[in-house]
Amino acid sequence: MAITHAKGYAIDSPKDYPNFYLKEYELEPLADDRITVAVECCGVCGSDHHTVCGEWGPFATKFVVTGHEVVGKVVEVGDKVTEFKVGDRVGVGAQVGSCGECKPCKGPNENYCVQPVHGYNTHWYDGSEHHGGYSTHVRSSERFTFLIPEALESTRAASMLCAGITVFAPLVRNGTGPGKKVGVVGLGGLGHYAVLFGTALGAEVTVFSRTDDKKQDALAMGAKNFIATADPNFAKGHELEFDLIIVTASSNKLPINDFLSLLDIDKKLVFVGMPEEGLANITSQALSGNAASLSSSHLGNKGEVQQMLQLAADKNVQPWIEVLPMKDATKAIKAVENSTVRYRTVLTQDIQ
Amino acid sequence: MAITHAKGYAIDSPKDYPNFYLKEYELEPLADDRITVAVECCGVCGSDHHTVCGEWGPFATKFVVTGHEVVGKVVEVGDKVTEFKVGDRVGVGAQVGSCGECKPCKGPNENYCVQPVHGYNTHWYDGSEHHGGYSTHVRSSERFTFLIPEALESTRAASMLCAGITVFAPLVRNGTGPGKKVGVVGLGGLGHYAVLFGTALGAEVTVFSRTDDKKQDALAMGAKNFIATADPNFAKGHELEFDLIIVTASSNKLPINDFLSLLDIDKKLVFVGMPEEGLANITSQALSGNAASLSSSHLGNKGEVQQMLQLAADKNVQPWIEVLPMKDATKAIKAVENSTVRYRTVLTQDIQ
Repeated sequence: MAITHAKGYAIDSPKDYPNFYLKEYELEPLADDRITVAVECCGVCGSDHHTVCGEWGPFATKFVVTGHEVVGKVVEVGDKVTEFKVGDRVGVGAQVGSCGECKPCKGPNENYCVQPVHGYNTHWYDGSEHHGGYSTHVRSSERFTFLIPEALESTRAASMLCAGITVFAPLVRNGTGPGKKVGVVGLGGLGHYAVLFGTALGAEVTVFSRTDDKKQDALAMGAKNFIATADPNFAKGHELEFDLIIVTASSNKLPINDFLSLLDIDKKLVFVGMPEEGLANITSQALSGNAASLSSSHLGNKGEVQQMLQLAADKNVQPWIEVLPMKDATKAIKAVENSTVRYRTVLTQDIQ
Repeated sequence: MAITHAKGYAIDSPKDYPNFYLKEYELEPLADDRITVAVECCGVCGSDHHTVCGEWGPFATKFVVTGHEVVGKVVEVGDKVTEFKVGDRVGVGAQVGSCGECKPCKGPNENYCVQPVHGYNTHWYDGSEHHGGYSTHVRSSERFTFLIPEALESTRAASMLCAGITVFAPLVRNGTGPGKKVGVVGLGGLGHYAVLFGTALGAEVTVFSRTDDKKQDALAMGAKNFIATADPNFAKGHELEFDLIIVTASSNKLPINDFLSLLDIDKKLVFVGMPEEGLANITSQALSGNAASLSSSHLGNKGEVQQMLQLAADKNVQPWIEVLPMKDATKAIKAVENSTVRYRTVLTQDIQ
């Protein structure tokens, strides 16, 4: 029998933050290129918090069911779906659709579609609402659905689908591998994945964090070096050392010019932490001494997601996650707000 | 007989700006790896103006002879010089020496030496003063001396040695060639070279200038398109179009976020214009939509300079220059100050 409805943990308005309640709702149509996934588990992302607490504005949909790090089983496929069949174990991330018509979509950059359909709090092109993975079912386009390698447990794969790919794509697009030195600024959910995947790709990873508090964690994750940036001279002696720096911290008070000085010639500093307020006082002189580039990044394309999942399976990449039943969504979101997550929470299915 | 002195057009202090006077002075020693060049002609760069008018601070040397776009004949070579012999026609640019010991010097990035010796108003490592090319003679290290191809006239080559290479290096380092689209922001000395070399490399060049005033010039130089940025909607319809944008304008009021939106995925905007005041309000969101990079650049390495000069000879690249006798240095500097140069001035030798 065709699936028409899902149940999920919803919030009707930012004023109800952080109290999710269980709600039944109609799913968007199963279009030709879409897949219905029965959710097994779903990671909890910083975006979930920013959205439901209202930091990113009023809701775009009548209510919001967050969650864009989904792993589950395929239970339906649209008529034109060729890559997946019922029973496949798949992942769905922070983007579930793209226009297919723009320049990025026509190339290998569907993650930069000019009119993307995000993981929740969003509409499809026909106006139907899309909701996320703190739920029993989600629908996604084939191009944004990923096969999970057998060796990778569902809870282990889930948070890779947003947090993981957000750092994995800039790592591989900038040539991370043996002999390369990667700096990771900030050790949260994103930063911890940058350490894990940078290391799995064969690079030497250095973590920059304000204090020494997370030093043991960073080294246990595979980082070779740890530098506390509270020391104003932290950059001294490390000039021109790095092939890539990924900034996962989202403060606009970061000493960006110091970080830029750490890059070797013609290398890149990639922001994935998104300070809302804009970057303070970047001078072109700070960029010209070593031809440093300041950049950012958004998720990854399908090939990169599959490469990441396979690498995680092959190299036994173990994210540091806390697993909770989905009914604890409120507790999980509060932990994001309070920055007490070490280093990612994954919610498992508990809806009857 | 060994050469020990030069005569040049000097200024003793910024307060004497813009009045150059003819002065005789002792040259730095002819070290093992150095070459003495009898100056035929020398281009006039914006840096010459910034330096002698005091905008960049007090002089570092007892007096300043500007000029770092030199073409002339080799008249002496140090004992360990192997690439050049007396009589060769060579160029010397905005850097005449490097430490040879730092990471960039040990690789192919001597133009990013951490302790460079510039073209004037600077000291060698032994403390001796180095003066520039508004003069009879300059000395430079072998690594910063370039053979001028026979087909390239001296006055045509001169301003390529700073203005030319400043835009040529980022063009080639970012893959400019047939099928690529390059945007050039600002049409002055640097911008006009970006059009000439971008076109010579086979790319399609678009010039962005505030008004239509320079449109005919831009098209005559080889640009295929011209866009006036005074129209606040100038970027509309050009999103994701460019493979590289080189910003040669030095205002910090440029609509940088608009220019960033013009870049295709994972492409670069390179500042060579150096706004002193820092870049206004760059948001990482403006970079993440297309993974745009914001970068800068400093001159080029020896291979790139030689490649540029050969391309100029092979493709008959004709810079738009005004040729004046060297005694008109004051007039030439005033023209830089007043932005009336179209598009570069070259001073020819007139000192007895």
